[in-house]
Amino acid sequence: MANGYTTDLSEDEIRPSTDAPEVVVQRLPLYVRVLAQFDAADAEMVSSEQLGSQLHMTPAQIRKDLSYFGRFGKQGRGYNVKRLSLELRSILGLDRQWNVGLIGVGRLGRAIIAYPGFKPEGFHVVAAFDADPSVIGSSVGGIDVRSIDQIKQTVAELDIQIGIVAVPASNAQSVFDALVEAGIKAILNYAPVAPQVPQDVKVRGVDPVLALQSMTYFLKS
Amino acid sequence: MANGYTTDLSEDEIRPSTDAPEVVVQRLPLYVRVLAQFDAADAEMVSSEQLGSQLHMTPAQIRKDLSYFGRFGKQGRGYNVKRLSLELRSILGLDRQWNVGLIGVGRLGRAIIAYPGFKPEGFHVVAAFDADPSVIGSSVGGIDVRSIDQIKQTVAELDIQIGIVAVPASNAQSVFDALVEAGIKAILNYAPVAPQVPQDVKVRGVDPVLALQSMTYFLKS
Repeated sequence: MANGYTTDLSEDEIRPSTDAPEVVVQRLPLYVRVLAQFDAADAEMVSSEQLGSQLHMTPAQIRKDLSYFGRFGKQGRGYNVKRLSLELRSILGLDRQWNVGLIGVGRLGRAIIAYPGFKPEGFHVVAAFDADPSVIGSSVGGIDVRSIDQIKQTVAELDIQIGIVAVPASNAQSVFDALVEAGIKAILNYAPVAPQVPQDVKVRGVDPVLALQSMTYFLKS
Repeated sequence: MANGYTTDLSEDEIRPSTDAPEVVVQRLPLYVRVLAQFDAADAEMVSSEQLGSQLHMTPAQIRKDLSYFGRFGKQGRGYNVKRLSLELRSILGLDRQWNVGLIGVGRLGRAIIAYPGFKPEGFHVVAAFDADPSVIGSSVGGIDVRSIDQIKQTVAELDIQIGIVAVPASNAQSVFDALVEAGIKAILNYAPVAPQVPQDVKVRGVDPVLALQSMTYFLKS
């Protein structure tokens, strides 16, 4: 990162971001979304107060989060909306295409293939895998379903960087093992399991309990 | 809330929490988890600095978030781990049982029924629904699968407060409509759609794009 990304900031303004905590990185996409809202409202500049107001975070927290990645704002002038958005998208790697392999072509897998939200954001599902012989060889949403035995070979062949796991819990760990073996470093996990993966592999799960726990507050009010 | 929850704080220490922003409420379960880690490490007291360090949030942000719900800490002494955890669990409604209805008994739905993480946290899946006549009437994980036409009647009969939607995208909105019609106010959505619901109904979705966007950062480093 520190050596890799281009920016219109001068060299001495760039701080290395290798020490940005993971939870801060996880907040950046929210910033990108809020910036898109300000941009859609034709706002040219935005303050950390305005960003904080949208995200219900203190302005100091916003400034601290952003400071891990560079100096984007001018004291008292706030942030240029378009520029900060472009910078954050670049930092997050959202300005390029990512090839995604989907494992599990059941109901959920089919819905994922059909999901219209991925491609506009640069995530292209280019391969699908299943263990069921009756599904292997068929085409789902224009994608040929391969055997999960072909994961490693296909990841190399199609330059796949991201895996999406949509298999039953009982099969999930073996699928994770296969993805790790194939060199995949980022996995979106729909299976309700806590997979074992090496430290350099990122897994984002749908955590249903966490989601439920933030709704019960409103039920009991 | 302001009138409803019991606590060992004296009356004048309790601030109404009706104005707690939703994103702050969404952070509370994370606090509960981190407090459980401190408790497991036999820590009696914890400071906003220590909590902030675990969550990579500024101590001021932690204190501000908690201030929406009451005055939990003593200046300079920090928070009592067990007490704060109990208070937050009470505030979030995690100290009781919630009855959950699952709609969609495909692969994902079956995995949700089998997921061992719900019950220890108080979420009991007490009913399952599907549109497929070949599945209706069967038993999945000890739960009888009913027709989705029976949602309203079953919600009333079994005192269901939460819905989990695990149907294909094409069927999702009609399921949301049925849950809303049945009086459900909290829905966990696994379908890759943005459902239309009334303002007083909370929906937590798995947002796959947001999850992917927070991983690509690590891929490009």
